[in-house]
Amino acid sequence: INSKLPTVGTTIFSVMSKLAQEHNAINLSQGFPDYPADPKLIKLVADAMKNGHNQYAPMPGLMSLRELIAEKTANFYQANYDPDTEITITAGGTQAIFTALAAVINPGDEVIIFEPAYDCYSPTVKLFGGLVKPFELHAPDYKIDWEMVKKLFTANTKMIILNSPQNPTGSILSKADIEALIKLTKNTDVMILSDEVYEHLVFDGEQHQSVALYPELRERSFVVASFGKLLHTTGWKLGYCLAPAKLMNEFRKVHQFNVFSVNTPMQVAIGNYLKSENVYTELPQFFQQKRDFFRKLLNETRFKLLPCKGAYFQCVSFAEISEEKDTDMAIRLIKDFGVASVPVSAFYTKGTDNKVLRFCFAKEQDTLEKAVERLIKI
Amino acid sequence: INSKLPTVGTTIFSVMSKLAQEHNAINLSQGFPDYPADPKLIKLVADAMKNGHNQYAPMPGLMSLRELIAEKTANFYQANYDPDTEITITAGGTQAIFTALAAVINPGDEVIIFEPAYDCYSPTVKLFGGLVKPFELHAPDYKIDWEMVKKLFTANTKMIILNSPQNPTGSILSKADIEALIKLTKNTDVMILSDEVYEHLVFDGEQHQSVALYPELRERSFVVASFGKLLHTTGWKLGYCLAPAKLMNEFRKVHQFNVFSVNTPMQVAIGNYLKSENVYTELPQFFQQKRDFFRKLLNETRFKLLPCKGAYFQCVSFAEISEEKDTDMAIRLIKDFGVASVPVSAFYTKGTDNKVLRFCFAKEQDTLEKAVERLIKI
Ligand SMILES: CSCCC(=O)C(=O)O
Ligand SMILES: CSCCC(=O)C(=O)O
Repeated sequence: INSKLPTVGTTIFSVMSKLAQEHNAINLSQGFPDYPADPKLIKLVADAMKNGHNQYAPMPGLMSLRELIAEKTANFYQANYDPDTEITITAGGTQAIFTALAAVINPGDEVIIFEPAYDCYSPTVKLFGGLVKPFELHAPDYKIDWEMVKKLFTANTKMIILNSPQNPTGSILSKADIEALIKLTKNTDVMILSDEVYEHLVFDGEQHQSVALYPELRERSFVVASFGKLLHTTGWKLGYCLAPAKLMNEFRKVHQFNVFSVNTPMQVAIGNYLKSENVYTELPQFFQQKRDFFRKLLNETRFKLLPCKGAYFQCVSFAEISEEKDTDMAIRLIKDFGVASVPVSAFYTKGTDNKVLRFCFAKEQDTLEKAVERLIKI
Repeated sequence: INSKLPTVGTTIFSVMSKLAQEHNAINLSQGFPDYPADPKLIKLVADAMKNGHNQYAPMPGLMSLRELIAEKTANFYQANYDPDTEITITAGGTQAIFTALAAVINPGDEVIIFEPAYDCYSPTVKLFGGLVKPFELHAPDYKIDWEMVKKLFTANTKMIILNSPQNPTGSILSKADIEALIKLTKNTDVMILSDEVYEHLVFDGEQHQSVALYPELRERSFVVASFGKLLHTTGWKLGYCLAPAKLMNEFRKVHQFNVFSVNTPMQVAIGNYLKSENVYTELPQFFQQKRDFFRKLLNETRFKLLPCKGAYFQCVSFAEISEEKDTDMAIRLIKDFGVASVPVSAFYTKGTDNKVLRFCFAKEQDTLEKAVERLIKI
């Protein structure tokens, strides 16, 4: 059998989580909380099941949940997405990204990806015959030089993938970034796939620059969001995609044959939860506290802290401690120190090594404390 | 935007379910139960959530659940699938089918599909550049003439898609069918994608001819199963795929970027449920009773019953009642009589109309009675 993805191995998340388990390490690698989800939300799922919501949801998702998403998007981003034709509930953010790419990428299409990048973008583009044009960003601030990005543009440029707040770096796009992007793509058909699964995890009073905020971009963009990241339930696998009707129509053609529909009782419960709880406003503070707490602890280690403006990842540089590759360092941290991280070179096509490790801080204070007690020894 | 799937509209299931709702019709169209799921199973999901199983499952699924699947597959089909490398939990049977096709279909590959066929196969093959070679079967018995199938074979034949028990016809593959298939594909690399989501719904003491039963086929087959159909929870969207390691390796490369992993608490609960309940043996009787009950009622109508050997669909012919197209008949049944069905022409590439409607009988006796009270008037 000829592999369609010959260079793809197991995701770095599986590799690190497995190693962490084998060595009984504190797992700060994959991005998920180690504290409980809200019992109220759990009860709402149980209620939904008891009330008989156990059969196929409508293909694009429950209308009541789509309406809440439309409302939220109007409030936060002054964007009116029609729940009937422009919002679809997916089996997580990753699945929304896959389906969006499946819907529009044709052989030969070029897709610009800013790296380090969440590792699903590139193989999915390739699966549909697209060509990845990576644009490397570097520690410590991972800033985009838009004049250089411009040089990657060709007649075949089909799409740019954005991810703000960014996984793994915790950097965010500024208003100036978006303005540069608007200028760059004005009078083109270049689409945007905007992975905004960490949209509510933006710190220090900064505003999340959703693509949905900008009418000039919105009309040719897919915007991806995650309930797993929002509600501390990454294992429930629910997210959604926003897009103008003409793009969403293509998205749904694939969605209906990819999964048809997604988990019904959890859609019901999330809808009821969002109606009764104030999740959006509490979230940034919740994680900013964790970030500040973790950074303060990490200051006592020999690692150099990189900025963290959003998402729930703190990156550190070990360039001044060791000449090791980051993958070796990450493995050594697990084996000898009992802490799992993700080596950021895994997020570059070329494995570019800036000597940076990523730690997830969506964890109990106690977990973060124990982890840093170990990291101090390095 | 140039559509990648220009001829694809909304699935027939969405169309019919929506019409049914608008006209307040009894919905025997889409294949899902209208009776409650087992409260024990529901409680196990609630327990799993309370016990903190709310974060990412391992990419291929929970090992404990995969082990139970391996055990079951050994018991039923004398097939040893390694849970570590040959079993993956998916977001439903449909997603398993999509991912399998994504993993192996290349542009120009030909795929033989027996029609009428569940409507996701064909567009998914096309999405990956494959060519669909439909082989039409016809009412009343939908038998396969394997000598004729042979004529469809070319050097580009990559795969045959099987579906037994079959949706929509309720026909099943016999041992002779499988033997003919083995003979036909001997010394070839032709793969099999075997959609067996109704594997336990085989009636009248017949044995389900799983592809997993046959080592000659197993080694080049993907076998797809569904927990939604097994546990009366189609809205939970959980299923799985079996394949030899070399195929599963390719499958997982796509799976990890399509959804990464699937619903954790429901995987935990299904595992615990399968350990304590005897689901497999009770299921055929449960649905055979429903089938028999429904057929007896339908005998009082002017429809002609077609055979139903498996799955939870009863097909009827109206050739002797009307010259209408089946789509028109199905719409008239909703609007004028208040019963929703699926016109079987929707499952043929060419829309071939055998004047057949499909009714789902995974319903309360009361529902079936009320439906037939209405159908009698036609
Ligand atoms: C499937 S892992 C999804 C992204 C994430 O949580 C991570 O980057 O760790
Ligand atoms: C998404 S519908 C899945 C198949 C089914 O249940 C049907 O054929 O009605």
